[in-house]
Amino acid sequence: MASQAVIRTKQTQKMVNGVFTEVVCSEFSNYIFVVLTQYGKIGTLVSITPDSRSGDISLPLYTTKVLLGKDEPLTHVCAKNVATFVSQESGNQPVLLGLALKDSTMDSIRVMKEMIKSCQVW
Amino acid sequence: MASQAVIRTKQTQKMVNGVFTEVVCSEFSNYIFVVLTQYGKIGTLVSITPDSRSGDISLPLYTTKVLLGKDEPLTHVCAKNVATFVSQESGNQPVLLGLALKDSTMDSIRVMKEMIKSCQVW
Repeated sequence: MASQAVIRTKQTQKMVNGVFTEVVCSEFSNYIFVVLTQYGKIGTLVSITPDSRSGDISLPLYTTKVLLGKDEPLTHVCAKNVATFVSQESGNQPVLLGLALKDSTMDSIRVMKEMIKSCQVW
Repeated sequence: MASQAVIRTKQTQKMVNGVFTEVVCSEFSNYIFVVLTQYGKIGTLVSITPDSRSGDISLPLYTTKVLLGKDEPLTHVCAKNVATFVSQESGNQPVLLGLALKDSTMDSIRVMKEMIKSCQVW
């Protein structure tokens, strides 16, 4: 057996509230890469990094940064909503998130988060 | 059959000049995403965009931009070397490249480009 771990990638797709939705997740050693797209695009690319300065581990803080695409306040909110649980479940790994949504209503986001969970690579 | 195309992802790994090397390629509608890593990391993230202002189509120009990681001159050279052919072969699609190399000698890069070719998703 090779001692090196191979990058794990999982993906899924389904209709969410009538919109074709795709998820791709890959585990790199320094980032969990997640794409959530309803356009087939990689979309707005956002890094979500746990804030190591946070003193209270029960309330971790996250820094979001738009690397590619429009930097809008709603993007940061949506990115945190979608990806914070990935970071938490993976032992506070940073997340690199590609986000291209037609429908970002709460109900749809909830279903999409379940899709991401089903692609767990962390 | 659903009319929507599913995001295609291919990956491969092998020893290149004694170093474990991994490639992951995914085709999004607005970017070809390529990771070439010898650390398991996503590494330095670089966008490589064909320059539409280029008048001479036989000599396309590329703009490279470091989105994540150290912005060093060598990174831009290496990114262009590795990813230009992907953009050319895919009809001038922009490329999003994750690069984490221990060995960036010309001979090794040549082998790695063959690895990327073997993961053709474009």
